[in-house]
Amino acid sequence: MEFTAQQIADYLNGEVIGNKDITVNDFSKIEHGASGTLTFLSNPKYMPHIYTTKADVVLVDTDFVPEREVSATLIKVKSAYSAIGKLFGLIESFKPQKNGISEKAYVAKSAKLGKNVYVGAFTTIGENAVIGNNVKIHPNTNIDDNVEIKDDSVIYTNVSICYGCVVGSRNIIHSGAVIGADGFGFAPDEQGFYNKIPQIGNVVLGDDVEVGANSTIDRATIGSTVIGDGVKIDNLVQIAHNVEIGNHTAIAAQAGIAGSTKVGKHCVLAGQVGIAGHLNIADRTVLGAQAGVASHIKAEGQIFQGSPNIPVGNFRRSSVVFKQLPDLLTKIYQMEKRIKALEAKKMKYKDILSN
Amino acid sequence: MEFTAQQIADYLNGEVIGNKDITVNDFSKIEHGASGTLTFLSNPKYMPHIYTTKADVVLVDTDFVPEREVSATLIKVKSAYSAIGKLFGLIESFKPQKNGISEKAYVAKSAKLGKNVYVGAFTTIGENAVIGNNVKIHPNTNIDDNVEIKDDSVIYTNVSICYGCVVGSRNIIHSGAVIGADGFGFAPDEQGFYNKIPQIGNVVLGDDVEVGANSTIDRATIGSTVIGDGVKIDNLVQIAHNVEIGNHTAIAAQAGIAGSTKVGKHCVLAGQVGIAGHLNIADRTVLGAQAGVASHIKAEGQIFQGSPNIPVGNFRRSSVVFKQLPDLLTKIYQMEKRIKALEAKKMKYKDILSN
Amino acid sequence: MEFTAQQIADYLNGEVIGNKDITVNDFSKIEHGASGTLTFLSNPKYMPHIYTTKADVVLVDTDFVPEREVSATLIKVKSAYSAIGKLFGLIESFKPQKNGISEKAYVAKSAKLGKNVYVGAFTTIGENAVIGNNVKIHPNTNIDDNVEIKDDSVIYTNVSICYGCVVGSRNIIHSGAVIGADGFGFAPDEQGFYNKIPQIGNVVLGDDVEVGANSTIDRATIGSTVIGDGVKIDNLVQIAHNVEIGNHTAIAAQAGIAGSTKVGKHCVLAGQVGIAGHLNIADRTVLGAQAGVASHIKAEGQIFQGSPNIPVGNFRRSSVVFKQLPDLLTKIYQMEKRIKALEAKKMKYKDILSN
Repeated sequence: MEFTAQQIADYLNGEVIGNKDITVNDFSKIEHGASGTLTFLSNPKYMPHIYTTKADVVLVDTDFVPEREVSATLIKVKSAYSAIGKLFGLIESFKPQKNGISEKAYVAKSAKLGKNVYVGAFTTIGENAVIGNNVKIHPNTNIDDNVEIKDDSVIYTNVSICYGCVVGSRNIIHSGAVIGADGFGFAPDEQGFYNKIPQIGNVVLGDDVEVGANSTIDRATIGSTVIGDGVKIDNLVQIAHNVEIGNHTAIAAQAGIAGSTKVGKHCVLAGQVGIAGHLNIADRTVLGAQAGVASHIKAEGQIFQGSPNIPVGNFRRSSVVFKQLPDLLTKIYQMEKRIKALEAKKMKYKDILSN
Repeated sequence: MEFTAQQIADYLNGEVIGNKDITVNDFSKIEHGASGTLTFLSNPKYMPHIYTTKADVVLVDTDFVPEREVSATLIKVKSAYSAIGKLFGLIESFKPQKNGISEKAYVAKSAKLGKNVYVGAFTTIGENAVIGNNVKIHPNTNIDDNVEIKDDSVIYTNVSICYGCVVGSRNIIHSGAVIGADGFGFAPDEQGFYNKIPQIGNVVLGDDVEVGANSTIDRATIGSTVIGDGVKIDNLVQIAHNVEIGNHTAIAAQAGIAGSTKVGKHCVLAGQVGIAGHLNIADRTVLGAQAGVASHIKAEGQIFQGSPNIPVGNFRRSSVVFKQLPDLLTKIYQMEKRIKALEAKKMKYKDILSN
Repeated sequence: MEFTAQQIADYLNGEVIGNKDITVNDFSKIEHGASGTLTFLSNPKYMPHIYTTKADVVLVDTDFVPEREVSATLIKVKSAYSAIGKLFGLIESFKPQKNGISEKAYVAKSAKLGKNVYVGAFTTIGENAVIGNNVKIHPNTNIDDNVEIKDDSVIYTNVSICYGCVVGSRNIIHSGAVIGADGFGFAPDEQGFYNKIPQIGNVVLGDDVEVGANSTIDRATIGSTVIGDGVKIDNLVQIAHNVEIGNHTAIAAQAGIAGSTKVGKHCVLAGQVGIAGHLNIADRTVLGAQAGVASHIKAEGQIFQGSPNIPVGNFRRSSVVFKQLPDLLTKIYQMEKRIKALEAKKMKYKDILSN
């Protein structure tokens, strides 16, 4: 399909700067571009490419003011990133929808399925499971006994939703994710042998949650591990038993949160962050990549980095000094020698000032 | 079901302090509590909640002495954490047991299955596999050719136990774990191309091992990657080829151990720890979260943190100074100036003491 | 099967030093060894074991010169590690090959399968998938619609190859890997709610790529996430959307690369390395374990460690000083006191030198 710049601008409530009639039929990345394609500029790192891109149409934020001539036609929108997302969503909506229960699936008789449900081949739906309307469960996935999945959620391939867990509405659970494996709880005896503490709680995912590929969210020891509404979890993330994540928090890949920690709302955890157990992390906390948190964070809206975490500006300045430590050590030893020399110094008459 | 405090105390060999006849029919977390529920106090961080919890019965360690009035009935037991585990186990034992071979499973004719085995839908049992008595293999799991699984083990969903690996008795393998994928072994040639070294060994898990969701334990190049008895492995842990883990070692989530390293007995690896290859780690070593170990640890029972790892006390003190490094740098430069000034200093007559 | 040292040397183009007629029928690790076995010496850390190994035959590099008597027969080859790999490959080639389409697999009618393909039980091959010759797809795996897998690739169990992704020739994809889950892309609105940016690109794996167990490679937002020829990826690695990895780069376990970063050719990323998004990493860069990279690396062939990454020698020296920081702090305070004392110091007549 081909669209004019004006047609796209109309769909996005945007304004065309340039040739309204130019047509595009595909997308491209701004650094490559290609004739007949549309691209977008959102991350300022890619700004220089707007002057050289071969794309014919570029979505830009309304406040974008070119510093020199741009040959492409621009469409100004409130948020170029959101707008491109809207266009991608349009494209996705043309992909054929999966529907119906595969003959090669296994659905327990006691399970209740809503309308317009898809269950792929070799997917198991356990006893007493409750599957909402428009839920799409792709092949090779296991929905265990007593699980509830609310309306409009998508569960991809090779996922395990374990016994009694609850998935909210409009969730997307990516391939290989495990929701509700046992928490890591053991009572060591006198000989240091570990006795398993059975984990009798579950996991409850709010609405509009996304869980990345191969991420793991453990069931609670008692009660529920709770993931708030709108929480977005990337790949290979570990969330331990009885953790609670506040609404609209984003957690990047390979981050891990230990047991019973409560993370606030609207927090951002970058990749490979670790948070110890039994902590409270205030709302709108931002943790830089690889940060390690071992104590409560009480004030809201702070940005940390490092392990143990310190304010990000401090971390950056300290890291600069870290690099200089060997030189600094040499300097200190030299200074010490000079102090020693000064302490031993005897004055000569000629060095004494008369007043 | 409802039990009195006394009935529970009898089951746990505990002592009731308070109302022996009060009844509970559910569990709660101490910080929430609820009328009609039982909770426990084990982690001292939660101590303050015992004075305010709404739970009617609280399991406490025998040495617990309240600092002020507790309205709940207490049951004193040797270990409150173990005792609650025993109660949870009782609850779990009422859950319906899975049994029998699903018609939708595939079991190779040459496989040998013990008594009272469960094989879920869409689970594959390969050629010559040997499955012990009371083994429960949940749906969507692959037990490859020549695998042995000993008595009373539980294998959850979407697990891969690869060719020729051995799972001990009473193991619990959580969803998505991969036991016996190829080790990461390549011989680079002159052009820097990697030639694969086939990995012809296997993985041998001891008895009472637990492997967390989506963890990976690679097969040995030659011989076996060996996980000792009673080892507990959390989620998303990586154990490379030819690693050996001593008995009763616990490994928290997202830790990784590189090839051929030998970890001792009764060690504790916290979350996101990394250990390089070809190292020996002494018994009872404790590695704090995110520690990175690049050399042998020879003395037993030490606690380390940091990357590279240093004794934990040292790490904490050094981390405090790390935070101050920019100020320290300023101070050092100022001190240097002062030394320079002192070196250039000339004395005035009036500043000379007569004796 | 039993072979003489001479037969093995002939197969490997090696030279026997010692008893040409001694026979072996198994492999062993050099530190254990055993009569009747062959082992190899490649990593110099294991050198001492060659003098005590009980193996009868040891493969060594041509430049190996024993420092004292070796009782085993040696076979000198260009690369002992490559040579043992060649022998292991020979052993592997005797393992029965899997072939044919399992009756318990599901293959969409529109899928095209090459010659000599294996599709295991409970594996799904989606619509319009194109599977090359000699491709082996093990049980419980999902090959989604419009996926292409080129000749001679092996896909193990519980793998997800998602919609429209391309797997090159001679790839090995280990169990639980997820190729082509959605990238982590969201546009936050004014309230801090995240709106999903649909990810309409794919993943393209080059030839001779190996992807480890439970690793995840996300599909591109637009275009392709590209893994070059000969790239070797270990377990639990995260590769985000629109990342490009140059040919013959090796990535160890639990490393993570954030979105749109371009890693050069022949790079080595050790375990638990993290690289931030939108960066360029030069060819032949080596990143030590747990390194964290937050800015471009422009010069080729450098070795880094630390987070943020600094040159490895610098990191090691700085780490030594880090350990001493508390002592250094004490020293600095003491020095400051001494400076203060010097500044206040008044001279005695007897300490004044006459010349």
